[in-house]
Amino acid sequence: MTEPLTARNSRVAAARKLTRRAGRDAAGLFLAEGRQAVVEALEAGAAVEVFATVAAAAQHEALLAAAGVPVRLVTVEAAAGLSETATPQGLVAVCPLRDVPASSLVTAPPQLAVALAELNDPGNAGTVLRTADACGAGTVVFGAGSADPFQGKAVRSSAGSLFHLDVVRSAPLVPLVADVRAAGVTVLAAAGDGEVGLDRAGDDGLLAGPVLWLFGNEARGLDDELAGLADHRVRVPMRGRAESLNLAVAAGICLYATQLAQG
Amino acid sequence: MTEPLTARNSRVAAARKLTRRAGRDAAGLFLAEGRQAVVEALEAGAAVEVFATVAAAAQHEALLAAAGVPVRLVTVEAAAGLSETATPQGLVAVCPLRDVPASSLVTAPPQLAVALAELNDPGNAGTVLRTADACGAGTVVFGAGSADPFQGKAVRSSAGSLFHLDVVRSAPLVPLVADVRAAGVTVLAAAGDGEVGLDRAGDDGLLAGPVLWLFGNEARGLDDELAGLADHRVRVPMRGRAESLNLAVAAGICLYATQLAQG
Repeated sequence: MTEPLTARNSRVAAARKLTRRAGRDAAGLFLAEGRQAVVEALEAGAAVEVFATVAAAAQHEALLAAAGVPVRLVTVEAAAGLSETATPQGLVAVCPLRDVPASSLVTAPPQLAVALAELNDPGNAGTVLRTADACGAGTVVFGAGSADPFQGKAVRSSAGSLFHLDVVRSAPLVPLVADVRAAGVTVLAAAGDGEVGLDRAGDDGLLAGPVLWLFGNEARGLDDELAGLADHRVRVPMRGRAESLNLAVAAGICLYATQLAQG
Repeated sequence: MTEPLTARNSRVAAARKLTRRAGRDAAGLFLAEGRQAVVEALEAGAAVEVFATVAAAAQHEALLAAAGVPVRLVTVEAAAGLSETATPQGLVAVCPLRDVPASSLVTAPPQLAVALAELNDPGNAGTVLRTADACGAGTVVFGAGSADPFQGKAVRSSAGSLFHLDVVRSAPLVPLVADVRAAGVTVLAAAGDGEVGLDRAGDDGLLAGPVLWLFGNEARGLDDELAGLADHRVRVPMRGRAESLNLAVAAGICLYATQLAQG
């Protein structure tokens, strides 16, 4: 058996740079950590290399034997350097960035797409990807300045969904929304004070598709300019006393309602 | 103006103990940090004392002038010791634990209640509280062994909703579910492989209320014993490829569907 690579090995050092956005940009690669992400990456043919500790390699022997890409044994310390979690699983895949052009939303609009403006938290980025996937969305667009969907926590929170749908990593949303509307897509802005209730939106056929949902920043919501470009500003009606919903929860409710309406 | 209290002051030291569960248990108090939480705590008559840095006291002068409870100036360092965030706002209220007995679910069942079994993450605890509040739930029960809803991150994630509804802090759920069913409440277990789809549950009148929703651990879901005690195991139908939904998102979809069904 070959000796596990240490943190000083050049391949490990190169992979470690992928834990930072600048490193991902420069290499055009990102890391998918943990069993679930590695399984999904391999299934999607999206991995080019896997790092595993000796223990992880033993635990996931069948998976790695069928990987079809180089599997490199690394020390526990080296694996920890590739990890963005408190308890590294010792298993990380290196994957090319999966970034599609925003123009795909105009040339071939999916029935359901999501655009995230100024989303701040990578965990929310992953959670919305996971929800969008569950609800059958074809594309998720991250607005310029949003969290990076290829950051470690985002990849992990997406629970594999990052490999199931088209991701636009960073697009200016104002021109995109105009183009998408011109292509016949209904653009709906989620807003706590929206003039259309989500229940009414369903009844009135606004969710029939193709639909692009816009969601804003966790604290500030959508800015007025962007919300003003949408066909409708939609609120999730609330009978209780909470002022607002958590962003990922609100997105979940809107996307599920859209899935239902699209039958 | 009085000199701000330092971290060594006995009141500050006593409050700092409330950042740990054992400290909250011993004192019967918890901390609500940041402007929104302090506003809600004061409005609910739920605060007994407020700590503020000189800067925060100046910024929130009107709020604190009308507080009706002692406001103590503290140093920035002392305030940081009372904070569980990376960027403390310098404003923290001390509040008595708001723990209602689980028996209230049996003697006076609300139309909508939520029980969380082995919920692990305090952020999720707060997010579910916020969603439950938004959807008009009367009570949220935390099963024995779950995250503490009075932990700092949970309080913050609840965005004030902790002060809007009844919270049972730690109850054994197995006997509770039996008692609640006997009282005529429909108990629904959220389960990815549930035999009833959420859309069907609404059509079949299962959400009409009173309803108690059971949600399980973020990774493992509900254990079989508890799920088996429910009237029905309900899944959120998914047309996409995600294996499951994030727990807080799934809860949001289920609770919103219940609110809609209860008109």
